[in-house]
Amino acid sequence: MSLLIVGSVALDTLETPHGRATEVLGGAASYFSIAASFFGPVQLVGVIGNDFPRQELDWFASRGIDLAGVDVRPGKSLRWTGRYHEDMNVRDTLSFEANVFETFAPELPEAYRGAGFVFLGNIAPTLQARVLDQVRAPRLVGADTMNFYIDTARTDLDALLRRVPLLMINDEEARMLSGERNMVRAARRILAMGPESIMIKRGEYGVLHFSSKTVFAVPAYPLEEVFDPTGAGDAFAGGAMGYLANSGDLSPAGIRRAIVYGSVLASFTVEAFGLDRLRTLTREEIDRRYRQFISLTAFDVP
Amino acid sequence: MSLLIVGSVALDTLETPHGRATEVLGGAASYFSIAASFFGPVQLVGVIGNDFPRQELDWFASRGIDLAGVDVRPGKSLRWTGRYHEDMNVRDTLSFEANVFETFAPELPEAYRGAGFVFLGNIAPTLQARVLDQVRAPRLVGADTMNFYIDTARTDLDALLRRVPLLMINDEEARMLSGERNMVRAARRILAMGPESIMIKRGEYGVLHFSSKTVFAVPAYPLEEVFDPTGAGDAFAGGAMGYLANSGDLSPAGIRRAIVYGSVLASFTVEAFGLDRLRTLTREEIDRRYRQFISLTAFDVP
Repeated sequence: MSLLIVGSVALDTLETPHGRATEVLGGAASYFSIAASFFGPVQLVGVIGNDFPRQELDWFASRGIDLAGVDVRPGKSLRWTGRYHEDMNVRDTLSFEANVFETFAPELPEAYRGAGFVFLGNIAPTLQARVLDQVRAPRLVGADTMNFYIDTARTDLDALLRRVPLLMINDEEARMLSGERNMVRAARRILAMGPESIMIKRGEYGVLHFSSKTVFAVPAYPLEEVFDPTGAGDAFAGGAMGYLANSGDLSPAGIRRAIVYGSVLASFTVEAFGLDRLRTLTREEIDRRYRQFISLTAFDVP
Repeated sequence: MSLLIVGSVALDTLETPHGRATEVLGGAASYFSIAASFFGPVQLVGVIGNDFPRQELDWFASRGIDLAGVDVRPGKSLRWTGRYHEDMNVRDTLSFEANVFETFAPELPEAYRGAGFVFLGNIAPTLQARVLDQVRAPRLVGADTMNFYIDTARTDLDALLRRVPLLMINDEEARMLSGERNMVRAARRILAMGPESIMIKRGEYGVLHFSSKTVFAVPAYPLEEVFDPTGAGDAFAGGAMGYLANSGDLSPAGIRRAIVYGSVLASFTVEAFGLDRLRTLTREEIDRRYRQFISLTAFDVP
């Protein structure tokens, strides 16, 4: 089924202990779309300036990402500059220039309104709701959010959460949103806010998935070198939603597979700067690493 | 096969966000022994003062823990006082009184010297070596260490590591010992120091096991309430070594099962103060939670 993603498309300047990259393709929706495109077509909703590199749009198109929903405006694209600490779990935002993203008002092409799977990237909850208002009868709606909106747009976010069956956030966000430090309690509180299930992204510690009755934990793939953690969470979401949209399988087993596929995409993403690793990634490599997740985690009953 | 443990037996005063307990049974060897005793008999080597509560020794004995190797000295037992922060991953040692532990010089009863499985708790590396010198031909030797010895007894520790096939330490210790932040690189460096395999305990994030060719990851059991994290790592080690000694199965699959049993014991241990949860724990509860680890982690290939 078709998969729609709305979110930021940006030019990132990144500094990690391993080096620096200037004005490279970034933004949650970019990571999401490319990761999801390994499983099937994607409909992208976003805004870019007329300075956006043509070859990146060509890359999106070549991967089956529909750009009819991308608004190209006169002006500069969203730019973000971030620096990671030696401990790459910690990063500072050095600059954030919203530019054309400032007045983003997502408008869905008619062809997008029948989307079966919808993912609301971490933009303002009012904009996420605006997208949701425009889709007719999605089979699954997933969403992300971030500290900034939990802090400054709580009423809007609460209203949105009542309409979002699947929330994907990181552990810090889960703590902020719930006021609970313990992840089990945090998840229970968030499930009481609306979502039927929640995937909590824990970076190098993997992912926890909670529904009212089940818990699933998958570790992150152990990598000798994490080159750049940017976009890992978005690539996770893209891989997971991409697999779900393509398989149409929302059974508990299907959701577990989606979480592992998401983890696979996240693990490749951090192997190089920005989206670079995904430029050469193949479906065969994805499936091979999926099987490696089995050998990483499997054990039996004595 | 028989399982020997050497390490600290202590009286702990604990403060967590959930409350306080004064001079309760503690020490790495206590947690280890009790956890291991669910799988088979244990031979304990340690030192206590003549103030040590008789009923705790009776409890050990009733669980099949041989106390012939416990040296009872005139004087006070080792005492430790610790306080956990709101974030229970962080704790301060408020006081440490070595007392009779100050001059601990482990001497193995003749009956212990044929032990098939030996675990060297985190005492001084020279004392760990002294115990190792006294056992004849153990099938498996495991060891723990701690920041203090990594800092102050590195030469002795390096010598010991060359004699220890299985190291079980936490992630902080792995970083200190290896000088590497990344866990995969840390593990590779430590494997080059002697051990054939290493289990890295990561608290609420579970355990990673590395050998030269394999990696295994198991999450921690998600608990709504962690009452007191004290001894979780020691209970893990006890559960894992207890299972290995009892099954005699050192195959890769057997080691994975041991790691899950260790994780089960750790998860119960943190549910109450000190060793209290293990006082009522049954083998049936252990096996039930083992199966819950399967449902927590299992997924299949699409």
